[in-house]
Amino acid sequence: MDNARSGPDRRTVLAALVVAVAYGLSGTIASAQTDPLPSWNDGAAKKAITNFVARVTTQGSADFVPPEQRIATFDNDGTLWCEQPFYFQLAFAFDEAKAMAPKHPEWKSEQSFKALLDHDQKALFATGEKGLLQIVMATHAGMTTDEFTKSVLDWMTVARHPRFHRPYDSLVYQPMLELLAYLRANGFKTFIVSGGGVEFMRPWVEKAYGIPPEQVVGSSGVVKFEASADGQPELMKLARVEFVDDGPGKPVGINRFIGRRPIFAFGNSDGDLQMLQWTTAGSGARFAGIVHHTDVEREYAYDRQSHIGKLDKAWNEAKRRGWTVVDMKQDWKTVFPEKP
Amino acid sequence: MDNARSGPDRRTVLAALVVAVAYGLSGTIASAQTDPLPSWNDGAAKKAITNFVARVTTQGSADFVPPEQRIATFDNDGTLWCEQPFYFQLAFAFDEAKAMAPKHPEWKSEQSFKALLDHDQKALFATGEKGLLQIVMATHAGMTTDEFTKSVLDWMTVARHPRFHRPYDSLVYQPMLELLAYLRANGFKTFIVSGGGVEFMRPWVEKAYGIPPEQVVGSSGVVKFEASADGQPELMKLARVEFVDDGPGKPVGINRFIGRRPIFAFGNSDGDLQMLQWTTAGSGARFAGIVHHTDVEREYAYDRQSHIGKLDKAWNEAKRRGWTVVDMKQDWKTVFPEKP
Repeated sequence: MDNARSGPDRRTVLAALVVAVAYGLSGTIASAQTDPLPSWNDGAAKKAITNFVARVTTQGSADFVPPEQRIATFDNDGTLWCEQPFYFQLAFAFDEAKAMAPKHPEWKSEQSFKALLDHDQKALFATGEKGLLQIVMATHAGMTTDEFTKSVLDWMTVARHPRFHRPYDSLVYQPMLELLAYLRANGFKTFIVSGGGVEFMRPWVEKAYGIPPEQVVGSSGVVKFEASADGQPELMKLARVEFVDDGPGKPVGINRFIGRRPIFAFGNSDGDLQMLQWTTAGSGARFAGIVHHTDVEREYAYDRQSHIGKLDKAWNEAKRRGWTVVDMKQDWKTVFPEKP
Repeated sequence: MDNARSGPDRRTVLAALVVAVAYGLSGTIASAQTDPLPSWNDGAAKKAITNFVARVTTQGSADFVPPEQRIATFDNDGTLWCEQPFYFQLAFAFDEAKAMAPKHPEWKSEQSFKALLDHDQKALFATGEKGLLQIVMATHAGMTTDEFTKSVLDWMTVARHPRFHRPYDSLVYQPMLELLAYLRANGFKTFIVSGGGVEFMRPWVEKAYGIPPEQVVGSSGVVKFEASADGQPELMKLARVEFVDDGPGKPVGINRFIGRRPIFAFGNSDGDLQMLQWTTAGSGARFAGIVHHTDVEREYAYDRQSHIGKLDKAWNEAKRRGWTVVDMKQDWKTVFPEKP
């Protein structure tokens, strides 16, 4: 009796447990059975990605890269989430400035603020980088880092995109979410390397992308350590640009924050060109990818002539060097996740 | 026969496998059976550390902290490795300058270089911060980041400490290596936050401490992205200080690189005071530790009067606020690892 009860059945259960645990630890067998990139249509882009990952993760392959060197960097605006009709961080700055305006009567004499408060978007953008920076500084400085974090999270909860009527942090690209998860499942460490403000991104990117704050590289303003009125230490955000993580600033930011050269990088505009050059100039297998916005129906279509996310020089170089260019309309089954 | 062969023995093996795997996954049962800090004498410091870790890692405890928020930051010089008779990075700069001197006859007219080449250490240090910075800049700029990394690794291989006659990267503190591993085994992410140069540390800290380059915060010089003579992109190190990660710079560096407030921090000097203040000013359970150098025989003894690693204001605040002060002589069974 005892033997019958504890016989094959228990052995089978135990064996299954061991096998299940072993599969769980390796992760590879289970994932080989399902498509890790279900929102990507079969095509050259998807194939280039999966081929690259297979090459660098196969033990004994000439292209094998040890896990600690599997650094992958992603631009944010236009690569991981939407950047139209203008950068979402600007939408945040505009909303914040409108809310703060009653306490700043002096703003009425400033062209940029006046245009903003008059809802004259054309005049607002006509004030150029200088005018927009004025609004960004007014809304990104003069508070502690903790206060700023709270204002970003509060805004993200209530603000809605003018065309899609969804929270901005839900306008992330489903295929790129899958790519991030796929890379991490294959031992990659995923980083954001964005021209956007690092303190604007950090509060929400962990939930949106599974990327923790310490893996976000971005532009920054000067921050000062000081004591509050009640003697508590705090970090004050000052109205002074410290670092612009765009164009040639991206490899500099990667070197400063990460200290290793990526083997995999993805961008969508000329602002990513130097990051892609820096990534592919390293020895061994390298991957450079570009998201080309070709989908006017589901998202937007823009490239060489666009003011935001201009893709011109980087496109030429991608063609010349055989980098992977993702055609959003052709390569992506879906663009955004199901409504949250 | 078959039943006898595949009976209890195989079941036992399978059961043992399952149990072993389960223990391996949880990690807690195995570690409870052995002392994770064998080089620490039993005493207040060790108890404070293990009590804190137990509090923040126990599910359901009022002080429980989710793993992703278990950020631990460590000063390097005098906290993780020796900093006497002077910062090891200075020893590197001196050796490099001596090797470069034949190509720089103009250095003979500079007080700091002259003193260095005359082996007049007193005169050398008498040139003060300005003179030393001259030597640091001459040896840390004017080359690519890749070239600098190589020079650090080459030096680390051949250079020997004047008193201990060992490679500098073997003069790390064994008890702190155990503390780093213990924290990581308990879900902490360990970072270096040092006044030392970030590019001087990154090439060797992964091997020495198990801390990857992307978890190193430090001082830095300006780096510029440019094309080499043959058109390859490269990062040039310029002779201009960009960021000093010391004193009030440490919380600023933590905010910039990590973007989260640590819950655990360790230092050894007044240069760490603001990092410890910033860490402990957060809500919930917090740990601040200071290494007090009291061991003239095995290492060095210094505090309030020392030029290097001065411990005065931070010591006062530690006493006032009940921070953990490690007495190297009393609390540490061994100081350095066995000879490599």
